[in-house]
Amino acid sequence: MAQEKSAGLAGVIAGHTGISTVGKEGVGLTYRGYSIEDLAEQACFEEVAFLLLRDRLPSQQELDDYKAQLRPLRALPDDLKVILERLPADAHPMDVMRTGCSALGSLEPEGRGRDASAIAHRLVACFGSILLYWHRFHARGDRLETGTDDESTAGHFLYLLHGKKPDELSRRALDVALILYAEHEFNASTFTARTIASTLPDFYSAVTGAIGALRGPLHGGANEAAMEFIQRFASPDEAERGVMELVAQKQLVMGFGHRVYRVSDPRSGIIKRWSKRLAEASGDTRLYPISERIEQVMWREKKLFPNLDFYSATAFHLCGIPTAMFTPLFVVSRITGWAAHIMEQRADNRLIRPSADYVGPAPRPFVPIFQRRA
Amino acid sequence: MAQEKSAGLAGVIAGHTGISTVGKEGVGLTYRGYSIEDLAEQACFEEVAFLLLRDRLPSQQELDDYKAQLRPLRALPDDLKVILERLPADAHPMDVMRTGCSALGSLEPEGRGRDASAIAHRLVACFGSILLYWHRFHARGDRLETGTDDESTAGHFLYLLHGKKPDELSRRALDVALILYAEHEFNASTFTARTIASTLPDFYSAVTGAIGALRGPLHGGANEAAMEFIQRFASPDEAERGVMELVAQKQLVMGFGHRVYRVSDPRSGIIKRWSKRLAEASGDTRLYPISERIEQVMWREKKLFPNLDFYSATAFHLCGIPTAMFTPLFVVSRITGWAAHIMEQRADNRLIRPSADYVGPAPRPFVPIFQRRA
Repeated sequence: MAQEKSAGLAGVIAGHTGISTVGKEGVGLTYRGYSIEDLAEQACFEEVAFLLLRDRLPSQQELDDYKAQLRPLRALPDDLKVILERLPADAHPMDVMRTGCSALGSLEPEGRGRDASAIAHRLVACFGSILLYWHRFHARGDRLETGTDDESTAGHFLYLLHGKKPDELSRRALDVALILYAEHEFNASTFTARTIASTLPDFYSAVTGAIGALRGPLHGGANEAAMEFIQRFASPDEAERGVMELVAQKQLVMGFGHRVYRVSDPRSGIIKRWSKRLAEASGDTRLYPISERIEQVMWREKKLFPNLDFYSATAFHLCGIPTAMFTPLFVVSRITGWAAHIMEQRADNRLIRPSADYVGPAPRPFVPIFQRRA
Repeated sequence: MAQEKSAGLAGVIAGHTGISTVGKEGVGLTYRGYSIEDLAEQACFEEVAFLLLRDRLPSQQELDDYKAQLRPLRALPDDLKVILERLPADAHPMDVMRTGCSALGSLEPEGRGRDASAIAHRLVACFGSILLYWHRFHARGDRLETGTDDESTAGHFLYLLHGKKPDELSRRALDVALILYAEHEFNASTFTARTIASTLPDFYSAVTGAIGALRGPLHGGANEAAMEFIQRFASPDEAERGVMELVAQKQLVMGFGHRVYRVSDPRSGIIKRWSKRLAEASGDTRLYPISERIEQVMWREKKLFPNLDFYSATAFHLCGIPTAMFTPLFVVSRITGWAAHIMEQRADNRLIRPSADYVGPAPRPFVPIFQRRA
């Protein structure tokens, strides 16, 4: 079959952005000019959300105000609760996020005094609520009160999940993971959001589509696939044998390599350190050592480096988060980047409509149905 | 602000397709090699759906079987009905389509014996049901029985809308409109579906995102905007003055011109003829003459030709279809093209992930929050 020169638009410039750099000279990630290392070390997730959405860092007062603004936005409207209750107990959690977002778009539509920023803040605050309301309803029959007074988005999520205030190590580890997942230029879900936004529909349409794109194992689903892989093994030696087998079969190991980064993923070292801290604090002697061995073998055999998804899997697991919630957590974070990109697309819009290379049948005469052979 | 060379990916080959040609030598549309003129003249919508999804025209027996297969798929599951009842009476109908599709994706998920083809058929059959169940519930408090035994998708839609068997002229006009709207290469919603599909999520994720893209006035929303424009005027002379005013203000008139077609939209003449027949049959002496005058003035002043959306607006209106349902009807039809493209993308997948031209701030040092000025 004919192949276009740049399959999957790899390396094709599809637009401009002032939000982030990915892989300048093969490494390096900045949000609005600030390095991901600085942000993960010194900022909190809400500070990064403010930066992405407003294009500057907040003052302490502005950050306090922003956090106070988010808190009441964690509660869900009653109609949305009914809708979430009707989604099955065995639904894919990303279907719940996608449907919850879409439904909220008709319950609290854009316009009528609700602009893009207001919706972005609402979704930052309530995506965790949507997931965990649905989860708790089916797991325990509870109608969870999602409006907590936790100061942080990470704390809110862990509180709803476990029913108690999280320890600070887990909370900050998740907070950092949310920072790392917040934004990544024209990845498939963000590019989806921009393509949808380019026809000028409402804000929720773009986000709903982005959730669908993130759901796939070649994108947001990778951290879940990584966890499932890591958990297959009882020891580092067993993991090494498992990786060697996959390598021999030329199969992918999820959580390694990247479309844009060539040398390393600058986020991986950061989440790896948090993963290690969590392992030490919890007395884990299995997952973290297995993860490290898989990393070593993948580098030795394939010269592939772990991307953000790989050590995030271990970190999330050690925070007590079920694997099926890993990709929804990605949504809780990435909504900030999506929102910034939707606003940027709108500010200087051109319909995104590429062309295709036609490889189908040549023009052919129509045969009326009574002349066709069965 | 910097502009990439091909804003909106105009003219950029983003992949290959064997499904349709759009604008070869400036005109011309084929589905699987058959000209749109032949299909609109000699085929019915279900025959075209079969062609798009199966890559060949059905025999009479196959077409009969396919229609019989679609009929029982028009009924909705109870959980979906409850969800639709919870979407507000004043919701945007495209939000209803988007949410209904997403919710169905968790109620009847892909896998577990349900493949892409089965889902495509289900959605062809029930998208009209989703819209009209919601509509009737809020308009009249009815819980509409959506499983009708109409032979055609167009007939099913008109029956549910008007509560009686439609006249054959309206039914066939809508049937032809569904054929014309079914497929159009890498338009924004189809490209959205393919981008989402390229991360390998479930089928519904790609369709849900495509609905969001279609919702915008630069895409599917154009026929509604065209209707609103046409209805502003009481006479052709008044319409001429209205168009001249917009032209003087350099404003867009929706329903004219096209990203790909340069000379004319091959679908426009076909739907114009149906629009004329409907006008004659209904004794309309206003909308059709106004539409024709707008066409003449746009050509005289701007050398812009009407696209499919322009005369579809008049045709739908003369079939008694409310303007707010025009874009949802586009969904009822285009699901066939989207489905074919999702299957094609999956069959030879590469993640769609372009690059961006960075125009943001240079790397800058992080200022800790206590050192920032308010």
